[in-house]
Amino acid sequence: MFVINKDSGTTVVHREPGRGPSGSLLQRLIGSPLPTADAPHQTVGKLVGLAVFASDALSSTAYATQEILVILALAGTAALGYAFPISIAIVILLAIVTVSYEQTIHAYPGGGGAYIVARDNLGELPAQTAGAALLTDYVLTVAVSISSGVAQIVSAYPPLYPYRAVLGVALVLFVMVVNLRGVKESGAIFALPTYFFVVMMFLTVGVGFVRYLLGTLGMVVGPPPSLELTASLLTVTPFLILHAFASGTTALTGVEAISNGIPAFKEPRSRNAGITLLWMSSILGVLFLGITYLSGAIGAVPSEMETVISQLARTVYDGRGLLYLAVIASTAVILVMAANTSFADFPRLSALVSADGFLPRQLAYKGSRLVYSRGIVALALVASLLIVVFNASVTSLIPLYAIGVFLSFTLSQAGMAHRWWKIGHMTPGEEVQERGSSLRYAPGWQLKMIINGFGSACTAIVTLVFAVTKFPDGAWVVLILTPALVVIFLSIHRHYKHVASHLSLDDYDPAPHIARHRVILPIGGVHRGTLAALDYARMLSNDITAVHVSMDSAEAEKLQDKWGVWGEGVRLVIVDSPYRRMLEPLLQYIEEVAAQRQPNEIITIVVPQFVPGRWWQNALHMQTATFLRLALLFKPGIVITDVPYQID
Amino acid sequence: MFVINKDSGTTVVHREPGRGPSGSLLQRLIGSPLPTADAPHQTVGKLVGLAVFASDALSSTAYATQEILVILALAGTAALGYAFPISIAIVILLAIVTVSYEQTIHAYPGGGGAYIVARDNLGELPAQTAGAALLTDYVLTVAVSISSGVAQIVSAYPPLYPYRAVLGVALVLFVMVVNLRGVKESGAIFALPTYFFVVMMFLTVGVGFVRYLLGTLGMVVGPPPSLELTASLLTVTPFLILHAFASGTTALTGVEAISNGIPAFKEPRSRNAGITLLWMSSILGVLFLGITYLSGAIGAVPSEMETVISQLARTVYDGRGLLYLAVIASTAVILVMAANTSFADFPRLSALVSADGFLPRQLAYKGSRLVYSRGIVALALVASLLIVVFNASVTSLIPLYAIGVFLSFTLSQAGMAHRWWKIGHMTPGEEVQERGSSLRYAPGWQLKMIINGFGSACTAIVTLVFAVTKFPDGAWVVLILTPALVVIFLSIHRHYKHVASHLSLDDYDPAPHIARHRVILPIGGVHRGTLAALDYARMLSNDITAVHVSMDSAEAEKLQDKWGVWGEGVRLVIVDSPYRRMLEPLLQYIEEVAAQRQPNEIITIVVPQFVPGRWWQNALHMQTATFLRLALLFKPGIVITDVPYQID
Repeated sequence: MFVINKDSGTTVVHREPGRGPSGSLLQRLIGSPLPTADAPHQTVGKLVGLAVFASDALSSTAYATQEILVILALAGTAALGYAFPISIAIVILLAIVTVSYEQTIHAYPGGGGAYIVARDNLGELPAQTAGAALLTDYVLTVAVSISSGVAQIVSAYPPLYPYRAVLGVALVLFVMVVNLRGVKESGAIFALPTYFFVVMMFLTVGVGFVRYLLGTLGMVVGPPPSLELTASLLTVTPFLILHAFASGTTALTGVEAISNGIPAFKEPRSRNAGITLLWMSSILGVLFLGITYLSGAIGAVPSEMETVISQLARTVYDGRGLLYLAVIASTAVILVMAANTSFADFPRLSALVSADGFLPRQLAYKGSRLVYSRGIVALALVASLLIVVFNASVTSLIPLYAIGVFLSFTLSQAGMAHRWWKIGHMTPGEEVQERGSSLRYAPGWQLKMIINGFGSACTAIVTLVFAVTKFPDGAWVVLILTPALVVIFLSIHRHYKHVASHLSLDDYDPAPHIARHRVILPIGGVHRGTLAALDYARMLSNDITAVHVSMDSAEAEKLQDKWGVWGEGVRLVIVDSPYRRMLEPLLQYIEEVAAQRQPNEIITIVVPQFVPGRWWQNALHMQTATFLRLALLFKPGIVITDVPYQID
Repeated sequence: MFVINKDSGTTVVHREPGRGPSGSLLQRLIGSPLPTADAPHQTVGKLVGLAVFASDALSSTAYATQEILVILALAGTAALGYAFPISIAIVILLAIVTVSYEQTIHAYPGGGGAYIVARDNLGELPAQTAGAALLTDYVLTVAVSISSGVAQIVSAYPPLYPYRAVLGVALVLFVMVVNLRGVKESGAIFALPTYFFVVMMFLTVGVGFVRYLLGTLGMVVGPPPSLELTASLLTVTPFLILHAFASGTTALTGVEAISNGIPAFKEPRSRNAGITLLWMSSILGVLFLGITYLSGAIGAVPSEMETVISQLARTVYDGRGLLYLAVIASTAVILVMAANTSFADFPRLSALVSADGFLPRQLAYKGSRLVYSRGIVALALVASLLIVVFNASVTSLIPLYAIGVFLSFTLSQAGMAHRWWKIGHMTPGEEVQERGSSLRYAPGWQLKMIINGFGSACTAIVTLVFAVTKFPDGAWVVLILTPALVVIFLSIHRHYKHVASHLSLDDYDPAPHIARHRVILPIGGVHRGTLAALDYARMLSNDITAVHVSMDSAEAEKLQDKWGVWGEGVRLVIVDSPYRRMLEPLLQYIEEVAAQRQPNEIITIVVPQFVPGRWWQNALHMQTATFLRLALLFKPGIVITDVPYQID
């Protein structure tokens, strides 16, 4: 403890408290508090960085092919052949987005998520739109990834089929607890499962192709009951193809992860992050194409009972052997890891939006374990709700998904294009510092602007295709939700600005000091608790009025006599309550007194509050003090003081 | 408004407030408040009195026969023949109880419920046991009567079978709302359905007997699937007969109603009430015997799908015609009326027990419609819960029922027997005033004592038989619950006595007045709200310490500077919070200050509380004031004051 004497005459004392009590159930679950100074500053190289940031993107290969097939199946078995051409189009889109994001990574070495890029280059409304789209999408990433993970497990062990939702919620809660403890983003934890998955998938696709070329790869044995093949209602139309394409674009979700995480890379950060992005996109593209091609070759059918990955693996490895189980296990684990990524991103983004004043301020406070606990819990609750409502069905969740991702892609790249335009119009040598990056004139800005602009236009079209083709299936929910969220964000911001301007001391003309102090003392009876409150009231002011609400005139008579003995001459007002109400007559009296108040007069209501020895005993007493407080909170110039009287 | 000047120098002002706001949704549902002066003082004659008080007792004929058959059916169809002899035994028991209660009615003209009789004659423990038994039983009366009413409706309209529980809860809520409005116990409302039921039942039994004697009454056509007849596992044993007898004694439930309601009768009250009791018991006995005999004659089987009453009615009237429907409707209505009786009795008894200090005091307050609203709502909630848990099955609920009734019969009659003994040992001419009645020597007390004693012994045996034979079926719940409730009642009483003695001003030596006043002002920032609180604090005392919990040293630095400008020289303490906690370091500081306190020194925590314009905006601010209050409530000598700062 040390003392500073400021020249203003104010004494300032610094104190450092102890660690505080520990050992509660909650603390045992999430660990003891960590001091602020312990915040980690660890950086990773390219190999570990790939493992840390790629799980979300790579894991989407586990469901993207299947979701294309689900739509095509509406037009019968023959239509499934369109899956591969569609996946080629998607990989081209992936290439465009990758090149575009590569530029973002170099421009924002401090981390260039869509929210930051849109905020710095496009302004408030696009930024909040990106924020709303991303937050919605993080929730859906958790719901979709966990549901797909559960689908893999159920494929390997069908008796679990009826318990999909329960399993999903349990996994979400598990990931939540892990994140509340605070994940040390240590390489090993992430590297092992990500590379295990990559190896297993390349092995499966590789063995599959070899057997396919040798002609020993048969068709899938005992295909599961299909979702849609039973009734081929539609014919193949451009709309259907676009619909299937939209479903397949979920393969691109998670590609933006690296651009958020650049600060975590070793120097040269941007270069390392950029190379990692290229690696990731290449792996993603190859696996996605391979899986889709082989699925067609073996005649895999989309089904809620068995995932396409499971059908592929047991066809390639001739049954449910050890290798099959390894594929399923690695897929399930990487899907859970993908959900885990959202548990890092959602709280971080909501803290960022909250710090900008567009979300409740509480979201910006780090909890005892140095993580944004409130955001983590909120994410887990909403994602669990989605899993329960959609019964952990990936196909039902997909129409809500990806639209937010592509909206944020569009805004982010449009922001980058605008940034290049600004740079192109700077004088050479000039430098402008923005919040997220610094702007300096660079030649060749035109090409960069075209790349980002083209990327933005492509993803804008995909967003539109997605919204139109999936509108009836559920995309309408997102199309209503996103603007609604933006409106909420903006009104929260307006509220905070309003409060700040009303609390600000700039141009503040201090009100004259309080001149008169009137005290009202509501009493239910005359006892020791009342006298303690009376004693306190007499210390506050000489102008005291005791008020008793009477439902029974005989009792009021007795109370008057008792007050004559103990009331120290203080004025007593008896308010009759013919309707046997306690609070209303008292409030009415207080309001009448308040109405007659002089300027600079303040009214304090001193309420004797009886405090029993145990909390449950509160149920045995009228909670007048609490109700009175709630009723009077909104009245200016009235202060309520409980004088607690503890009997034990 | 008038003013009395008491000689003590205290000014006492009487005020009468207005009716207060009205028109809320709740008020439209239950009606506007009624002034205390409107309490009804209506009395009824014998014919209306029978209608008002008999519904509970008479309605039990709707299920008592069926419940005897349910048990006998365990030993196969042949065993059903024992039902009639068993019902004769039950009617003999009814006669004994009636004669015994007849004496109670004359001894307690002011109302002689089991609780009052036990309290006045046996003491605290038996009285609270009777109270617990009766309250439990009122809840079960609602659950059983409504479930049986639903069973009648379902018998007439089987498609409703899957919605039994929903229907039951809806009926309970309907009766609750009616009672919250306050039932004017006007004769017509009660007389019509009760006499409709009595007429329909006598008609059915009468027509049934005529057809039986003429030989035209056949067997029940298409009997419903039986509950137990499919597997006749048991043989007829004395235990089985006693078990069936115990089920049948539910016919006696409600017989005590008149003894509670004597004050409602016209003078001569006791005589009128006594005659009504005899009528009621006669009707009950005749109907019960008639229904049981005819049920045997037509081969009725116990079933969840169709009640015995329904089987009887459609056999007597050859199908589901108008007369059949009239029987079912009248039965359903009287069962709902029986539930309604509990909605009068339960709140009245709980108010009585509460006024004696054995239940939370709130239960003794009449609501805006002059009824004990809290008791009514509590009853509805618990009864609904039972209906849902037992899926509105009368047979499942019966093992919990009646044991409380017979326990209270036993205690009430034992109390009466003891009363006669006391009277027999008084000197002639002596008169003792008890709370519920007056004692005066009377000759012939020996016979009366024997009658009540015999009644008590009989019902004690029945209680025992019930407890033993129905123990595994659910009676164990009541055998645990009743003593548990008694223990709760006694601890509530102990708490109230403890509080009263600690609050009492008898032998109270007033503590010396408060000598020192120390004020602590927790601040999160320096703004207008803080300055309003500072102004208030300066009015309270000169000894003020502002405290700021700091999670960020740079911000704390800025706050110090601002405090130097605006803090009016008041001491500022900065408490560092390395674990980013807000409340704990503050509480620790306050506790340290409190520990150094001198005698007669009081500490006031002045908390600036920011009040937003709309309630939902509270979610956007830290609720420090609220949490601080909860944490400090139990600390003696610390007073918390919120200084609200409304920005709009």
